[in-house]
Amino acid sequence: MRGNLAMSEKTVPLATGLDVRRAARSGALDAPTSGLAPGYVQGNLAILPHDYAEDFLRFCQANPKPCPLLGVSEAGDPAIPALGADLDIRTDIPRYRVWRDGEPVDEPRDVKSVWRDDLVSFVLGCSFSFEEALMKAGLRLRYVEQGRNVPMYRTSVDTAPAGRFRGKLVVSMRPFKPADAIRAIEITSRYPRVHGAPVHAGFPEQIGISDLTRPWVGDPTEVREGELPLFWACGVTPQSVVMDARPSLCITHAPGHMLVTDLENASLAQA
Amino acid sequence: MRGNLAMSEKTVPLATGLDVRRAARSGALDAPTSGLAPGYVQGNLAILPHDYAEDFLRFCQANPKPCPLLGVSEAGDPAIPALGADLDIRTDIPRYRVWRDGEPVDEPRDVKSVWRDDLVSFVLGCSFSFEEALMKAGLRLRYVEQGRNVPMYRTSVDTAPAGRFRGKLVVSMRPFKPADAIRAIEITSRYPRVHGAPVHAGFPEQIGISDLTRPWVGDPTEVREGELPLFWACGVTPQSVVMDARPSLCITHAPGHMLVTDLENASLAQA
Repeated sequence: MRGNLAMSEKTVPLATGLDVRRAARSGALDAPTSGLAPGYVQGNLAILPHDYAEDFLRFCQANPKPCPLLGVSEAGDPAIPALGADLDIRTDIPRYRVWRDGEPVDEPRDVKSVWRDDLVSFVLGCSFSFEEALMKAGLRLRYVEQGRNVPMYRTSVDTAPAGRFRGKLVVSMRPFKPADAIRAIEITSRYPRVHGAPVHAGFPEQIGISDLTRPWVGDPTEVREGELPLFWACGVTPQSVVMDARPSLCITHAPGHMLVTDLENASLAQA
Repeated sequence: MRGNLAMSEKTVPLATGLDVRRAARSGALDAPTSGLAPGYVQGNLAILPHDYAEDFLRFCQANPKPCPLLGVSEAGDPAIPALGADLDIRTDIPRYRVWRDGEPVDEPRDVKSVWRDDLVSFVLGCSFSFEEALMKAGLRLRYVEQGRNVPMYRTSVDTAPAGRFRGKLVVSMRPFKPADAIRAIEITSRYPRVHGAPVHAGFPEQIGISDLTRPWVGDPTEVREGELPLFWACGVTPQSVVMDARPSLCITHAPGHMLVTDLENASLAQA
């Protein structure tokens, strides 16, 4: 199921963002999107009532590392032309999570039944884009090789507040040997629209992480002798902050089930 | 004397590379060039007999981090038009060091008396350029603030050999808090023509440095609790390698007395 759809006798690869979105829309795809449509930008989704939109926009503007905005819709409009042709944000993600007053209440395959004319969609860059660049450069991601999820931690670092949105920065951690850590910093610094360079290196206790073996979300990843743990601002930060603000309605992607866009990862790299 | 020349009653600032070179040529300037002509690229000098030039070019090509070539002259020609107008490499550096068979024999104010028609001049980028960018970004260099020299270490890391040139990589060390270390890596990675990003971070013993308090050249710099030591490839590497090759004649700048060019540091930054 990962990467291909079995249709009658033959296998149809999901090669582009449009392929993935149409497969999600038709119901043929019900799986995480990691590894699908290689080279295409995948994004985090947050849909909020218009009443929250300006605060959230200001929050993203003030916190570009955890909240790198790739696209924003008009209120009530399910299209986001800048991110994809024939894109319907109500149907084109394989699985959604619906939140009411800050609590998850459902994980539907589409959100047509809860759609409203005042909803604004925000798509934020995700680490898949820079991880592809790291792997192309020959760097190894231990959590990927071990078939696990990246470990994420709530830090003691405050985000810049905006209106009703405030809270602690969430980070993801990836360990590297020093020369690879330097390469990883160089490479990810070229991708400011997908979290950019790490926010910390080396001393987890300095950012309020007392125990690397106990992530807040995801699976622990071993940091071996002579390795530096690198910490990147994480797209779970806005989700954490939005949940704390307890909007009457919020729609996100279900974990790992991202919006796959028509943008190419390579287009996000700065020269 | 640093930064200005007292001439009769008034002080003449050395504002450009050309100002510095002419002051060196006239004999008015006999001092290290650090802080002179802010914004202009300063370079390490190595002058070798033509017989060694091809090997040395290949050595630089194979080791761009310690040996970032900014310019090479024609054999016997004291001009390097790409680096400066009205430039005479025999006179335009405040003080030289002359080496015979790998041993220093003199530190003259000019090298006209030892000049030969088969000498080729190599100018290599130096860390002053990226340090200016670091300080402009608000990062603090402890060794500068303490008025000392940067500590340099001979590592256990082999350079790529080329002909008669081979040897260990020499690095300079600057300590930073983690977030500043990440910034320093980001910034210096944009300056590949002046050593680029660090070659190591965090674990000196991994590159054969057993005691940070005992540099090979320069003064020790304290690494404080919670700081990461960053190690950059150093322009002393080619000097060390050339001396080991014991050419019959070699001319370098005297330590700290660099060639100041017409290039601007900003022009070395990648977009």
